[in-house]
Amino acid sequence: MRHLILHINCPDQRGIIAQFTSILYDHGANVLNLEQHVEPDEKLFFMRIHANLSSLTISEDALKEILQALVNKMDAQIHFYFPENKLKVAIFVTRESAPLYDLLIKHQSGELPCEIPCIISNHENLKEIAGQFNIPFHYLSITPETKAQQEKEIRELLEKEKIDLLVLARYMQILSSEFVEDYRGRIINIHHGFLPAFKGNNPYRKAWERGVKMIGATAHYVTADLDEGPIIEQDVVSVNHQHSVKEMVQAGRDIERRVLTSAVKAHLEHRIILDGRRTIIFHS
Amino acid sequence: MRHLILHINCPDQRGIIAQFTSILYDHGANVLNLEQHVEPDEKLFFMRIHANLSSLTISEDALKEILQALVNKMDAQIHFYFPENKLKVAIFVTRESAPLYDLLIKHQSGELPCEIPCIISNHENLKEIAGQFNIPFHYLSITPETKAQQEKEIRELLEKEKIDLLVLARYMQILSSEFVEDYRGRIINIHHGFLPAFKGNNPYRKAWERGVKMIGATAHYVTADLDEGPIIEQDVVSVNHQHSVKEMVQAGRDIERRVLTSAVKAHLEHRIILDGRRTIIFHS
Amino acid sequence: MRHLILHINCPDQRGIIAQFTSILYDHGANVLNLEQHVEPDEKLFFMRIHANLSSLTISEDALKEILQALVNKMDAQIHFYFPENKLKVAIFVTRESAPLYDLLIKHQSGELPCEIPCIISNHENLKEIAGQFNIPFHYLSITPETKAQQEKEIRELLEKEKIDLLVLARYMQILSSEFVEDYRGRIINIHHGFLPAFKGNNPYRKAWERGVKMIGATAHYVTADLDEGPIIEQDVVSVNHQHSVKEMVQAGRDIERRVLTSAVKAHLEHRIILDGRRTIIFHS
Amino acid sequence: MRHLILHINCPDQRGIIAQFTSILYDHGANVLNLEQHVEPDEKLFFMRIHANLSSLTISEDALKEILQALVNKMDAQIHFYFPENKLKVAIFVTRESAPLYDLLIKHQSGELPCEIPCIISNHENLKEIAGQFNIPFHYLSITPETKAQQEKEIRELLEKEKIDLLVLARYMQILSSEFVEDYRGRIINIHHGFLPAFKGNNPYRKAWERGVKMIGATAHYVTADLDEGPIIEQDVVSVNHQHSVKEMVQAGRDIERRVLTSAVKAHLEHRIILDGRRTIIFHS
Repeated sequence: MRHLILHINCPDQRGIIAQFTSILYDHGANVLNLEQHVEPDEKLFFMRIHANLSSLTISEDALKEILQALVNKMDAQIHFYFPENKLKVAIFVTRESAPLYDLLIKHQSGELPCEIPCIISNHENLKEIAGQFNIPFHYLSITPETKAQQEKEIRELLEKEKIDLLVLARYMQILSSEFVEDYRGRIINIHHGFLPAFKGNNPYRKAWERGVKMIGATAHYVTADLDEGPIIEQDVVSVNHQHSVKEMVQAGRDIERRVLTSAVKAHLEHRIILDGRRTIIFHS
Repeated sequence: MRHLILHINCPDQRGIIAQFTSILYDHGANVLNLEQHVEPDEKLFFMRIHANLSSLTISEDALKEILQALVNKMDAQIHFYFPENKLKVAIFVTRESAPLYDLLIKHQSGELPCEIPCIISNHENLKEIAGQFNIPFHYLSITPETKAQQEKEIRELLEKEKIDLLVLARYMQILSSEFVEDYRGRIINIHHGFLPAFKGNNPYRKAWERGVKMIGATAHYVTADLDEGPIIEQDVVSVNHQHSVKEMVQAGRDIERRVLTSAVKAHLEHRIILDGRRTIIFHS
Repeated sequence: MRHLILHINCPDQRGIIAQFTSILYDHGANVLNLEQHVEPDEKLFFMRIHANLSSLTISEDALKEILQALVNKMDAQIHFYFPENKLKVAIFVTRESAPLYDLLIKHQSGELPCEIPCIISNHENLKEIAGQFNIPFHYLSITPETKAQQEKEIRELLEKEKIDLLVLARYMQILSSEFVEDYRGRIINIHHGFLPAFKGNNPYRKAWERGVKMIGATAHYVTADLDEGPIIEQDVVSVNHQHSVKEMVQAGRDIERRVLTSAVKAHLEHRIILDGRRTIIFHS
Repeated sequence: MRHLILHINCPDQRGIIAQFTSILYDHGANVLNLEQHVEPDEKLFFMRIHANLSSLTISEDALKEILQALVNKMDAQIHFYFPENKLKVAIFVTRESAPLYDLLIKHQSGELPCEIPCIISNHENLKEIAGQFNIPFHYLSITPETKAQQEKEIRELLEKEKIDLLVLARYMQILSSEFVEDYRGRIINIHHGFLPAFKGNNPYRKAWERGVKMIGATAHYVTADLDEGPIIEQDVVSVNHQHSVKEMVQAGRDIERRVLTSAVKAHLEHRIILDGRRTIIFHS
């Protein structure tokens, strides 16, 4: 079975679904799933179609060409994804092991459809975990002086490994604006706080001092503005006066890993479409 | 603006979306929202389409006829709903006021798109609440001897008021199998337990005795099998050893009303399709 | 049965529980429930004791005197509450009806142990709801010119009715710093956002624009700093790209009312002790 | 610092807290935390005291003797736990890796205060994970003929390693009634369903067929009645019509591991007291 996932977005107008699905139907592509959404303020239309190409009556290139003609007519944008081409993911870590473990375990069990050619860290202490799962670990230390150089080495590594997605699994370094811009929509970070509250460092300490009754975690795409990128997923857990900062950290760990892994899974399954600063997360 | 909601279900086959949306597009009906689902075991296809008919180029009857021809070809079933025709709801209660209040408040604020021509009860003690919201209250007492007679009076009332949906908001009487069968898919009940656990009477007492750490509520369509009908919505709340049965009842009340109102809302907005013993709940 | 609830707080030291409970035991007061907490940073001790005085062998005044002597020795503070003296609550509203309804319904059903001698509003549109529950409604309009005068009238009303607790149930006016200071620890507000995110106006619009995946509500004591007072309770509900601002408002309503009523209940049952900017919420 | 945790339970009566805490205070034991609970139906009193013995003015044995005298007078039961003596845990597994990983990761990070001298399985496929964490893995295969023999080997192993707690982390074998009886209150199981619903095999398949909107997991002490032992912790996650059985299994995994690890943690920290078929879970 050969599968295709389409992402289409355009100004809202009549007949979008009918016209796209008719092309697929006319040429033997079977729609397995279709989800769409209209953003009400700016009247933008977004659609994800999952089709089976096994009985396609024309070549894939010919299908693409016909779809592209409609796209042009509709002032739309289209992206083609073939699920059998698994994305390649680089995981960035520092000292916290929980989100890394979760990604590797879910990858091992087949829940995350991707390849993980490398783990990159500015510290050495998670090297052993990478070894447990037989994944190459790249230790690239950083000092204020070597930061630019380290980023250059990261770029070389990502290019060599043909990385599609960068996952910052509690990576405690800030990437340069140029770097972030070049990988726009392809870097997912987990923030250990309920954004937009508690941006920046030490969110659990800040949460404790503010006396909140819930703590959270937020997975988002990274942009040049720290902790301001489009949110993919969030979750919270209740805390009370008995929780010390350390206990909040422990309670938060389960949320962080779950939220990050879930966001990465949505990206790998091509279920996310960016709508400016917001994300559209389709279900399947 | 004239709106139409379609429910279509049929054996899964190629081109369903393309063919239905093309008919709508060709005749000026604008699809505002489309959701579909394929049940994987029996390969059944379900779809809900919300269309705007303001620019329809043929009559509504003509559109229906064309759609019906396709339905026949595809061995499908179709239902037409016009949201401007608000459903008529009868609320059944006994002594518990919380779910009744919630339905009436949400109706008053415009969140529940329906008319409520009557409240029916086998006790008199919620009469005053009906009065607060200016809704006729029908007290129909029940004894083992009068049960059949009372059900007959209920039927007459429902027919007179042209009731579309019966909501059992903690109505503590069991309706006869014949009655339930005649209103199949049109009676929603709230059970104050997390089905399929704790069926029948006193679910909170049973939950306390079993020492569960969460209690729940379940909104479901009523069938002749007690508490076995298709589930629409469920929710839970955490409890602990400090909760007495009475405190569980209090904690459960907020869940019961929220779950019931939400299930009723989904029905009124024509977002539910029955799939045997399961429900498909579309989002909008 | 005559009941007493004690709140005791002091610098942490040895033997606090033993000495206080021994006094109660020695004079026939039966401890029904005891909860304590030590704040770890500043080593402060907090305790709530619920005792039954039915078999007290000395007068209540004598007991108080003996306890006061220990309090002085320990550099502590003590508060005495008698649950049979129900607190008097004034509810402040503007246009939003959901939190008001919830307070009145829970009060009517006996879940909120208080009296509600008045509802105060700067608009007239919730007057009818007050009437449904037979509670005097005071309409005190506000213009920039009359704000000081209106606050004076509020004070007179609160004093006349001997109000113990002010509940701001979506009251859309900011009280003066002097007023807030005079009622410190006795004004509870519901904020329709997950503090400390989305302070101030239009939190749902801000949440929509930021693209958050959960929206929340926060009940807190009011201080002169807007939305910065000690948090009592918070909760959230999941939202997604399909939620318009209006749908977020609807989804948030259920959370707001639940969080506010629960916070008010905790205050009325004397289960809250303030610890600077944080709250200690005991369970029973 | 030398710490002591006391569990005391007895018929409810006056002065329990005062008398026990006075003994501790009089002999230099500093109460760090005290929690109590009265079961309202049978009037049973339960208390957990966490004390620091660093400044004890008598020997520990002398303290125990004095406490024991009071225990006898009050018709009570007392248990003494010294947190520095970490419990020894045996983990039982079959094929499912997620709960095992979670226990080992949390143990490695110091969140689970215990030793894990062995992992026992009736299959070999999780052997490698045990190796990753350097924990001896015992493969004891089972056939209907060897079941009794295998249980004998398990007993020998548990005795040799002086095991205090058995954790069944998706161990798909039923232990004999004699075995379970001998380890009463010392075997924790994770059931991948929301008990008391969906007992026995294939709870996710049953949940799918019933069309529930939430699936859950339950950690409980094992008794001779399958899935009927005292519940320690439960949690749920929402599902909908789009979830296949396989996706329910995946969604449930995160809940299972979290619930099991949390229940084990509560046991290891001596925060659980059994009250017949119910559990009392103290907070700290």
